[in-house]
Amino acid sequence: MQPDDLPVALDAMGGDRAPEEIVAGALEAREAGLPVVLVGPVDGRLGDVGGLEILPASEVIEMKDDPGRAVRTKKDSSLVRAAEAVRDGRACAMVSAGNTGATMASALLRMGRLPGVSRPCIATPLPVPGGSPTVLVDAGANADCQPEWLVQFAQMGAAFYRERYGASRPKVALLSIGEESSKGNQLAKATHEALSAGPLADLGEFIGNVEGRDLLAGEADVVVTDGFTGNVALKALEGSLRTFMSILGEVMSATPETKAASEVLLPGLLEAAAPLDPEATGGAMLLGVDGVCIISHGSSSRRAVLNAIRVGHDLAERGLSGKVAAAVRPKG
Amino acid sequence: MQPDDLPVALDAMGGDRAPEEIVAGALEAREAGLPVVLVGPVDGRLGDVGGLEILPASEVIEMKDDPGRAVRTKKDSSLVRAAEAVRDGRACAMVSAGNTGATMASALLRMGRLPGVSRPCIATPLPVPGGSPTVLVDAGANADCQPEWLVQFAQMGAAFYRERYGASRPKVALLSIGEESSKGNQLAKATHEALSAGPLADLGEFIGNVEGRDLLAGEADVVVTDGFTGNVALKALEGSLRTFMSILGEVMSATPETKAASEVLLPGLLEAAAPLDPEATGGAMLLGVDGVCIISHGSSSRRAVLNAIRVGHDLAERGLSGKVAAAVRPKG
Repeated sequence: MQPDDLPVALDAMGGDRAPEEIVAGALEAREAGLPVVLVGPVDGRLGDVGGLEILPASEVIEMKDDPGRAVRTKKDSSLVRAAEAVRDGRACAMVSAGNTGATMASALLRMGRLPGVSRPCIATPLPVPGGSPTVLVDAGANADCQPEWLVQFAQMGAAFYRERYGASRPKVALLSIGEESSKGNQLAKATHEALSAGPLADLGEFIGNVEGRDLLAGEADVVVTDGFTGNVALKALEGSLRTFMSILGEVMSATPETKAASEVLLPGLLEAAAPLDPEATGGAMLLGVDGVCIISHGSSSRRAVLNAIRVGHDLAERGLSGKVAAAVRPKG
Repeated sequence: MQPDDLPVALDAMGGDRAPEEIVAGALEAREAGLPVVLVGPVDGRLGDVGGLEILPASEVIEMKDDPGRAVRTKKDSSLVRAAEAVRDGRACAMVSAGNTGATMASALLRMGRLPGVSRPCIATPLPVPGGSPTVLVDAGANADCQPEWLVQFAQMGAAFYRERYGASRPKVALLSIGEESSKGNQLAKATHEALSAGPLADLGEFIGNVEGRDLLAGEADVVVTDGFTGNVALKALEGSLRTFMSILGEVMSATPETKAASEVLLPGLLEAAAPLDPEATGGAMLLGVDGVCIISHGSSSRRAVLNAIRVGHDLAERGLSGKVAAAVRPKG
């Protein structure tokens, strides 16, 4: 299998703006020289696909569908077929902006878990103004966790960071409620102890605890937590960003004078805010499955789709799965 | 005991800006007609206190001190003496901007737990632009929780909300990672089931799950979670606010043109951002102890101290502790 010859399998029916924006992203990817194959219905529902190849899939898993049940019953869905394309060596990676739970279930059930991985986890890049993103693991795959799983999330997150952002020894931190090792819940305290024993070896450096306020500050390259806390924190950040943008928008559009003043500030604001745009990050990754799986935001535009395809293709070329499997392999 | 005749006991040595800003806040409170007594050293370290009464306390619990040990060993500290003043009926409430853990421990050990309360919790008001704050319980007192404790946090939080913000039936939500009752970790799912069984009775209405992104959106009046998740979420919000303000400040001060444009926007921005200022909320409350205890932010200025004294005095007058005790009492 030569991943660089294989296309990225794109779930054409997944996401709030599917299929239009998804197909448009695929066309932009082809323009950029990235191989891509659409997965979806061949009955014309995808519109004009500009001659792109379509892997046929007649069913659609909806956002509201129960993930486990949907993957079991909708065997000919675009999501399940995209995962099968990776499993069968017809695609190097899968990308979906659809139902997150069903994307995880499809990848897990069709691609399978990597050897030695207890639980796959979601790695979500958080924007750091003026720096490389901080990768949050687990951002929502596992609501209840064991300390050993968090150690693996740290290992897999570090392996991902190295391939994605090129740092040789990423700084890995544990999310807790105080910097001291004695602070935190039982899970965090046990994980702190386990991470201090050196399981990151050559993958990176464990720098101890960080707090919620450090998530956007770039202190760590990888921040480890359970999927419940991680998802709450991620969405709290999203919500506060939205609140702040909405306040700013109201103040700027209040009067003709404020509108004119905003024109002066807008170029600088847009430039400064660019790293905060989740569309630029390429989406979240499911780590620990036997293949590259990118989980894009439900609201993904063509630009987000293009970036996800680019990242998926690049990580497949770099052999991400092999690196992740090696990261969790017991040493010595 | 007539709480309205009693002063608020203010830990004069607690906080990053103690004693200067703390004493200044006390003097402003007296100006505003609020009775206040300083608790701290009488050796001149407090500076000019303008004739305010001082309850003597020779020791200081530092921010870095271990809370439990500090309260046991520094028996003559301003924090412990402030809690004793409430216990002994010499003050109606205590306020400290010092070591949060030691404030909790002092209040718990000196005032004692209210009858029926399993664990006291921290209630922190989150700003909601254009609306009343949303109260987050538990914002950090209990890192590991039982579902029954979260039910009590909901009851105590609702009782607090009614007295503090005047809503007769506050909307109470559970923080989770999806709106459906099936979403969440084991703790959230068990708590959802328990809250659905009606333990809020006349205190408020359980409206189900909310997510991290809803925390600043004002969907709920009270949001319940464990102290680990709550503290991570609270600090994530603080951190993102700081990041955003810093980006905005850089863009505004970039050139003479942007500075001039910012002048036009500043009045509106300051007005819009005012509700986001934690100094305006009066600080966090420790609920479930036999007395009113306000935990102010470590960076509190005189204005934050003044607001905390005002809120503490008001809630003591309203008999908050009795309301909280009634809220957790089994019905029927």
